[in-house]
Amino acid sequence: MQTVAIFGVGLIGGSFGLALKKAGYTGTIVGVSSEATLKAALDRGAIDEAAPLADAARGADLIYLSQPIGRILDTLHHLDTLVNSAALITDAGSTKSAIVSAAQKHIRRATFLGGHPMAGKEKRGVAEADPDLFRGRTYVLTPEDPATLETAPAKEFLEWIRRIGASPVVLSPEEHDRIVAFTSHLPQLASTALAATVAERAGDRLDVAGPGLADTTRLALSSYELWRDILATNSESIELALSTYILKLEYLRDNLRTRDIESEFEIASALATTLRKG
Amino acid sequence: MQTVAIFGVGLIGGSFGLALKKAGYTGTIVGVSSEATLKAALDRGAIDEAAPLADAARGADLIYLSQPIGRILDTLHHLDTLVNSAALITDAGSTKSAIVSAAQKHIRRATFLGGHPMAGKEKRGVAEADPDLFRGRTYVLTPEDPATLETAPAKEFLEWIRRIGASPVVLSPEEHDRIVAFTSHLPQLASTALAATVAERAGDRLDVAGPGLADTTRLALSSYELWRDILATNSESIELALSTYILKLEYLRDNLRTRDIESEFEIASALATTLRKG
Repeated sequence: MQTVAIFGVGLIGGSFGLALKKAGYTGTIVGVSSEATLKAALDRGAIDEAAPLADAARGADLIYLSQPIGRILDTLHHLDTLVNSAALITDAGSTKSAIVSAAQKHIRRATFLGGHPMAGKEKRGVAEADPDLFRGRTYVLTPEDPATLETAPAKEFLEWIRRIGASPVVLSPEEHDRIVAFTSHLPQLASTALAATVAERAGDRLDVAGPGLADTTRLALSSYELWRDILATNSESIELALSTYILKLEYLRDNLRTRDIESEFEIASALATTLRKG
Repeated sequence: MQTVAIFGVGLIGGSFGLALKKAGYTGTIVGVSSEATLKAALDRGAIDEAAPLADAARGADLIYLSQPIGRILDTLHHLDTLVNSAALITDAGSTKSAIVSAAQKHIRRATFLGGHPMAGKEKRGVAEADPDLFRGRTYVLTPEDPATLETAPAKEFLEWIRRIGASPVVLSPEEHDRIVAFTSHLPQLASTALAATVAERAGDRLDVAGPGLADTTRLALSSYELWRDILATNSESIELALSTYILKLEYLRDNLRTRDIESEFEIASALATTLRKG
């Protein structure tokens, strides 16, 4: 893999460029993004060159789509005729079913392998990029056909995922989307709903809050722009996750005065403890 | 205030002792607690002496009740005959209406002033005590009659609250309980319910989680033992807070595919930003 093209050099794309370099990658990293972002990415050293989309696509061995989901879907629509047929196209979108479907439909000449690094921050942009963002984190891969993982470009990409410190995990696109609805999308909406509720009902008395309110509302700093596409492309699983959560809250509400909720605290505490061992 | 008696030398009581000393208090701090806790508190230097309840009560100018709420209620039942009539009795319980009512009923000879330092950690016990726990935090006071604040022992206590770095805020017990139902009790139950939901539906795939799940479930580490009394003594306000939160979650669920929820993200993000400026 002589040349990597990163489409969308924000937090994830920029971090991927920095991580590759830190891990010893000596090829060329080309960025495709807005002019301002490209300048910032060049300054940070996350990319070596900026190029128009078609030029970058033509010359790349690995095309890394780290745009918002809607832009990834757009890009997949017109990428196939532009790429080297030996290239691997991958993406870092937070939902996988819609993207893998679009790739299956539109990418004929090159190989596509969907991906989702389970890493991030509530702040976006290449200014927040970090070569260690993926270290110790899971990197989900969602091949439409498991044989994709045995191709030479996919094997090389997996090797780089390991070198940047991430752990590859293979799931179907549907499994991925069902799991992250609970482990990622539900925590976001729980935090947003909590912050919005507190704002409406106690927003004038934030001086009278325990320190826990800050932790539980940190995710609420995330912007709608990022989440709109996630919510739109994983609606059914997220609806199920929210409904399951609402049932749990109703159970707690209806049993506040009883000891029945002790086991909920125990289950919850065990989960929180396990997460901290990981 | 020559002698302070701390009843229940756990995280809060132990931190209060350490904070007083750090702030220059040179009187005697007497602890009333279980034998093991008293030994740990003496080792930490959070108290100077251990004493049986009746002895400690008799000699104290300030009695600081930092037990669990249920124990505070018990203590208030039989404290009045034991105390010096010039003493101030205060407490650090997380709900105020039930405690202030009990004090009004049972404390006749001494002065009672309810309190709630908005400080804490998910870990309990004197081993976690910290002289800076109250620094920069609000310390709510809930006098049954505002004139209580003008008594000499209350004025002296307020001065020590300021010296340990906290900011006194005066509220009625009912106002306090309505506010903390949203700013403290709701975040706890939202976190517990989230962790319990994730445990049940994705507990075997915690490797596939974003970093935000750890933040939103940190409060879920808290134990039911601590929360049982809070839930039992503020049930109505907590039921309202949970119902309000559930309505918000239902609104998000029913509008996932629409732009209507953009304003919820904006309100939530503004709240989370404000909290971080505090």
